[in-house]
Amino acid sequence: MSESYEKFIARVEQLADLGHAQALLSWDQETYMPPRGTKMRARAQGTLAGLEHEMLIDSELVDLVRDLQGEALEGDGAVNVRETARQQKRALKIPAQLVVEMTQTASLAHEAWVEAREKADFSIFQPWLEKILDQKRQVADAVGYEGSIYNALLDEYEPYAKTEEIAALFADLRTQLVPLVEGIAASDRRPAEGVLDRSFDVTLQERFGRGVIADMGFDMDAGRLDVAVHPFCAGTSRDDVRLTTRYAEDWMPGSLFGSIHEAGHGLYEQGLPAEAVGMPAGQSVSLGIHESQSRMWENMVGRSRAFWEHYFPLLQAAFPGVVDDIDLDRFYAAINQVEPSFIRVEADEVTYNLHIALRFEIEVALVEGRLRVDELPEAWNEKMRSYLGITPPDDAQGVLQDVHWSFGGIGYFSTYSLGNLYAAQFFHQAQRDIPDLMEQVAAGQLLGLKGWLNGHIHAQGARLTADQLVREVTGEGLSAQYFVDYLRTKFTPLYGLD
Amino acid sequence: MSESYEKFIARVEQLADLGHAQALLSWDQETYMPPRGTKMRARAQGTLAGLEHEMLIDSELVDLVRDLQGEALEGDGAVNVRETARQQKRALKIPAQLVVEMTQTASLAHEAWVEAREKADFSIFQPWLEKILDQKRQVADAVGYEGSIYNALLDEYEPYAKTEEIAALFADLRTQLVPLVEGIAASDRRPAEGVLDRSFDVTLQERFGRGVIADMGFDMDAGRLDVAVHPFCAGTSRDDVRLTTRYAEDWMPGSLFGSIHEAGHGLYEQGLPAEAVGMPAGQSVSLGIHESQSRMWENMVGRSRAFWEHYFPLLQAAFPGVVDDIDLDRFYAAINQVEPSFIRVEADEVTYNLHIALRFEIEVALVEGRLRVDELPEAWNEKMRSYLGITPPDDAQGVLQDVHWSFGGIGYFSTYSLGNLYAAQFFHQAQRDIPDLMEQVAAGQLLGLKGWLNGHIHAQGARLTADQLVREVTGEGLSAQYFVDYLRTKFTPLYGLD
Repeated sequence: MSESYEKFIARVEQLADLGHAQALLSWDQETYMPPRGTKMRARAQGTLAGLEHEMLIDSELVDLVRDLQGEALEGDGAVNVRETARQQKRALKIPAQLVVEMTQTASLAHEAWVEAREKADFSIFQPWLEKILDQKRQVADAVGYEGSIYNALLDEYEPYAKTEEIAALFADLRTQLVPLVEGIAASDRRPAEGVLDRSFDVTLQERFGRGVIADMGFDMDAGRLDVAVHPFCAGTSRDDVRLTTRYAEDWMPGSLFGSIHEAGHGLYEQGLPAEAVGMPAGQSVSLGIHESQSRMWENMVGRSRAFWEHYFPLLQAAFPGVVDDIDLDRFYAAINQVEPSFIRVEADEVTYNLHIALRFEIEVALVEGRLRVDELPEAWNEKMRSYLGITPPDDAQGVLQDVHWSFGGIGYFSTYSLGNLYAAQFFHQAQRDIPDLMEQVAAGQLLGLKGWLNGHIHAQGARLTADQLVREVTGEGLSAQYFVDYLRTKFTPLYGLD
Repeated sequence: MSESYEKFIARVEQLADLGHAQALLSWDQETYMPPRGTKMRARAQGTLAGLEHEMLIDSELVDLVRDLQGEALEGDGAVNVRETARQQKRALKIPAQLVVEMTQTASLAHEAWVEAREKADFSIFQPWLEKILDQKRQVADAVGYEGSIYNALLDEYEPYAKTEEIAALFADLRTQLVPLVEGIAASDRRPAEGVLDRSFDVTLQERFGRGVIADMGFDMDAGRLDVAVHPFCAGTSRDDVRLTTRYAEDWMPGSLFGSIHEAGHGLYEQGLPAEAVGMPAGQSVSLGIHESQSRMWENMVGRSRAFWEHYFPLLQAAFPGVVDDIDLDRFYAAINQVEPSFIRVEADEVTYNLHIALRFEIEVALVEGRLRVDELPEAWNEKMRSYLGITPPDDAQGVLQDVHWSFGGIGYFSTYSLGNLYAAQFFHQAQRDIPDLMEQVAAGQLLGLKGWLNGHIHAQGARLTADQLVREVTGEGLSAQYFVDYLRTKFTPLYGLD
């Protein structure tokens, strides 16, 4: 190892350690921090982000990266230099002061959003969103872009992706989904009614959920499960991965599928390459690839009939007397009810993607300046009518429902649907590689899939881009067709469509 | 405000924010971090501590402090500059290489101490303690001192205190305590026997403890109470103060008095001046003053008969059937049992101070070179016989019992007894200022004392030194007499002494 590379790694480790601290401070803010801690936490996060930024663009590190790019390193060394160079290039172009301002704005905007949503009053959040968008356009102008200005923002969440390509994938997806949703909506089946709206003891929900994620292979010696208002998976390293969920006595599927979803993310984090821990090569590829892991476990496994062949009797035993009057088929149909609804996070796996298409189109229009923030609630409601045939009763159930924009997450949403597309394409491949995969699932053996994901996806770290990864694993680039085929195969019999 | 001062404050805020992050990472490590997180957490803490050190001694901050010392600032500005200069001077004088060596030594010495204590074999720890003492003398020589070399080490924990003054206070204290302990030991009363060794449901213990600390005025909107193996109070600011305690079904006093003790620390932190939050002027004065707050609440309030006039019926109601067969007087005597014992952390409020005097005298003699490390176990046991009349059966229950030395914590112990002395002197003053204070306590009204502490001590931040504070609040310097009088008044009737 060259002396330059050793110096480079020492600095990269310091960057990772600042990231470690920021990740823990964020996790704590959403789980255990007392309410009055917000202000000083925002200041501390601002300082840490500012230090990380300064450290990333420090001239000595810039020189080291330039020297190492000339050394034509191989293996992880090359990945570490490539990814540091990419982040450095972006950071060098964004003024340090803007970074600090954005971090502080995010924390305060988040508070405003909480209040706005509570009061269903968009006007409380509007000035903050305008400020965030203004900052984001400054970022885009600073880093530069080809094509849409939105590309500059997308790169933060889905590196190397292009707005134009996503727009094309989503147009294809939407064209095929709207008729499917219409066909289902025209059906008179409402399989969830009377099946899921029962009282499930919260302590038992937690116990059952913990059992399932243990079966998935999530390691509690290297992780936790806590409660958060808006569930997420965060972590400081592959050895410390923190899942969150939320429990409601009258809505068991919320905590169960939420826990499975976050554990899908968590398995990815815990499965990242040990030999590259704390290094860029040891990170996940992108949010889209991350979401493919959570969605696969939540929907393709957790909402499959095979899964419930094993778990439905266990559910009946875990909640004595609560679901004794229903059978596996009724339960399976109920957890797969498709119905246009207002709230993205409660949407089924078919309509979900129309919620995302709406957000993606609105974000691009806002950032490109084709839509003003004060026009946003109406634009939102108009698209809800057009794609899902329903109108939100208020902004809390409309434009104010998501947390993302409140912390400056512009460019994030598309990664959710990209996750579904990647998930279906990977899952199709997993079933080719493990022909009895669904038989294993039906026997409660989930470690076969976990092992396949560990080997083919998790252990790769960030060595490949998302596009390279999907090509290496499945032999072709990302397509919407695997996901559409998966949905048609599953929902045609459930809803008696042709 | 001068431009220099603004620049200075911006850097001081960054230092505080790095402290915020380190405090949260430590808290998390002791409460919620999964076991495998240890390695990366240690690395992250090392990086943050290193960055804080670099930032403190950065030449621009050194220049700013020097300029501002010339400006003769007043009020909080002067305090902020004074305290930063003090820390900077210390950090600048200790060679970086020595800091690295001490960190490495501490880690290895701690391992050796764990093994030595397990095997009750001092010889395993002896060479490490010699090395630590050698390093500490190098630190003292580097930072400089007047009088005892020990003064240079004391300054880290109890700023502006003097070894010679503490030695005189402790000699006075010891001279008066030894006869009191002898008198009690000669009595045949063992009031705790059969009273406290009962089974108290842990959930109910937590509920009861939370009730008491709420009555004390600890604000859960600006704090938390969690579980830790070694309880502590930590916090990231006055708006986010984290208490910890531990519950054992067969030892209720451990969690209850532990919670009250930590809440005493917590009230201090929450009461620090809002206008100086995150500034040196907004910090606590010293470990001794901090300990005065915890000890006052734990012992002078929490172990008073007045307190239990209100709380004993509530305790009986909170734990149905558990303490119905005993009355207030028996319970009050039981929680105040005095008995010479080997282990400091389990000692009662009388003998505790003899444990501390012993450690202080030994530390000073070791650092001053009047005692060799190989003579330490015998010196320890000799003092145990002389002060407490008992001889430890082995070194695990003697000289090896405390963790402090293994981490290089030389100069810390005296702050525990200083806390008791400050507590008694402050509490005496509080009773003069609030003549019906104990009647309030007996009625469960604890906010009168809290308000007095807030106004006279907490809201002062670090504007006064400990000596200045005790003189301002009580009109005289620290004396052992208030504490001795408090103990005599309390324990003479309890043990039927004259």
